[in-house]
Amino acid sequence: MRTVEWHDSRVRMIDQRRLPHALVIVEYDDYRDVTAAIRDMVVRGAPAIGATGAFALALAAQQSAAARRDDLLADLRAAADVIRDARPTASNLAWAVDRLLRKADATPGDADALRATLLAEAQAIADADVAINRRMGANGAALVPDGATILHHCNTGALAAVDYGTALGVVRAAHEQGNNIRVLVDETRPRLQGAKLTAWELRELGVPQTVIADNAAGHFLHAGAVNLVLVGADRIAANGDTANKIGTYNLAVVAKENGVPFYVVAPTSTVDLACPSGAAIPIEERDAREVTHIGSEQVTPDGVAVANPAFDVTPARYITAIVTEQGVVYPPYEASLRRAVARAQHEFE
Amino acid sequence: MRTVEWHDSRVRMIDQRRLPHALVIVEYDDYRDVTAAIRDMVVRGAPAIGATGAFALALAAQQSAAARRDDLLADLRAAADVIRDARPTASNLAWAVDRLLRKADATPGDADALRATLLAEAQAIADADVAINRRMGANGAALVPDGATILHHCNTGALAAVDYGTALGVVRAAHEQGNNIRVLVDETRPRLQGAKLTAWELRELGVPQTVIADNAAGHFLHAGAVNLVLVGADRIAANGDTANKIGTYNLAVVAKENGVPFYVVAPTSTVDLACPSGAAIPIEERDAREVTHIGSEQVTPDGVAVANPAFDVTPARYITAIVTEQGVVYPPYEASLRRAVARAQHEFE
Repeated sequence: MRTVEWHDSRVRMIDQRRLPHALVIVEYDDYRDVTAAIRDMVVRGAPAIGATGAFALALAAQQSAAARRDDLLADLRAAADVIRDARPTASNLAWAVDRLLRKADATPGDADALRATLLAEAQAIADADVAINRRMGANGAALVPDGATILHHCNTGALAAVDYGTALGVVRAAHEQGNNIRVLVDETRPRLQGAKLTAWELRELGVPQTVIADNAAGHFLHAGAVNLVLVGADRIAANGDTANKIGTYNLAVVAKENGVPFYVVAPTSTVDLACPSGAAIPIEERDAREVTHIGSEQVTPDGVAVANPAFDVTPARYITAIVTEQGVVYPPYEASLRRAVARAQHEFE
Repeated sequence: MRTVEWHDSRVRMIDQRRLPHALVIVEYDDYRDVTAAIRDMVVRGAPAIGATGAFALALAAQQSAAARRDDLLADLRAAADVIRDARPTASNLAWAVDRLLRKADATPGDADALRATLLAEAQAIADADVAINRRMGANGAALVPDGATILHHCNTGALAAVDYGTALGVVRAAHEQGNNIRVLVDETRPRLQGAKLTAWELRELGVPQTVIADNAAGHFLHAGAVNLVLVGADRIAANGDTANKIGTYNLAVVAKENGVPFYVVAPTSTVDLACPSGAAIPIEERDAREVTHIGSEQVTPDGVAVANPAFDVTPARYITAIVTEQGVVYPPYEASLRRAVARAQHEFE
């Protein structure tokens, strides 16, 4: 199954908090529960929460009792505000919700016609995501030398998208092409998406991997043991500054210091041209418990303060290139990202 | 009590694996068990394992049944080889054991006289360690601006030494002088010495602190929220290259990139003039379980490979200064470290 999908008038997804030890499927029939699932990271990964947000709004349309088109549109705008607020950093969530709202506004017909249109559009976003990821995989695989060791942060695989993956989609494409790659997997504290999710996906795919503490990444970069770094993105500003999982900035600085190419892999839906630079990207602060506890184990002494920013911003100057479904985009990003987004809009319309 | 001490013909220490949740004291009457305690990290921290190694050899002397001086010396050399092998990276262990062997060789008298001499010398190393740490604290505190936020990696406090601490000794001295400092505490995966030990020590001392995932360090360095970085050292090569807890190299690179001073705090016993550069420092690889499990919780899927280097090497060019008991040492380190070590030898003899 896909990471998230529409099934029998419900939104169905893999509970990613239970992996790698249990594969648990959950279903929701209330868009507020889907919103909570995004917030609580039942589902995570920028493209996946984009598609999930779209399905949540389609579900809200079904839940609304409105008989008149205008009343339904008002309900949808209220639901969209709730859904958009679930997580602040990733741009795909707002991108998907706003795309559905625009589609509803532009579609003639009564309330039931709108309901059908919204579901079709959410399904189209999910289907397009898979196709887009495969295109990014092919575009990025061309950058991977034969037999490369790839350093990877967080999880950007099928679980972070509807299917296939972004940065791990590039890994997968290279592997499928017979390139004898190997992946160094950052465990990615505090939530350990690398150790839990990426390690699980790579094992299922049969890609050779070695899991490391995030602290060890610099050691291997400095030792010349890494050929390239691949990461995803939660929001890319117009100038190329990129918000991604906390720790990405460290990696980018140390990669540059050691002359190792650093690639961001993300669909154009992650590019936010309205956001001029990284300084304008909101950084989500998550619960202290993600740091103080690991599973049921308390790590820290009682009563210590914690700071837990979920993302950091990597300035564009550290990014060798950005792999999108519209091709590999190089600096200066201000111009190249704008062209890529324009091509994507042209393709969709 | 001290982190490690001689008590009633035994070596007594705090079991650091149980902190912060339980304060457990363990005692050993066999030097091989003390060696195992070093290897299993019941006691850790370069200065602490130096003193522990000295007590272990004093204990071996007591255990030896040798009646003749030469037989005892032979037993001691065999025991020293066992003790030195417990952990390969920190230089203090070999430094302390070799100091005791030299002392034994140079001391006239029969076997029992040697036994007494070795115990006195081990005690002198432990006592000197506390005095040395206080001197480093004073030397380093002069580098800490008023109200500074200090980023700290691993544990370098009283627990990492016989008492007081190295880099955390500087924090402690600044705090005792009334400097209104605050510490950002790297949790320090994989063994979480920051989250467990440093957070516990700082709480006991009343120093304001915030624990962060190691991945967040770059975010705060880049945001201008850190005034200086303080770390300890496990071995400093003649050219200033410094082996320290894994993750130190990342921090040093990112600190330099952001113009934040990066200080190493270590006694001259950590300087290994026989080691020309970081390339010659052996890096200990520890058990995969430190990465795959946290406490009793398994994190990774079954059967994934792990790399777990316990230390990395920070090239001297990233180090602003090295704080020793002989003063603050600046580049070029080749000359300044040699002078500091010579001053220390002169002081001891």
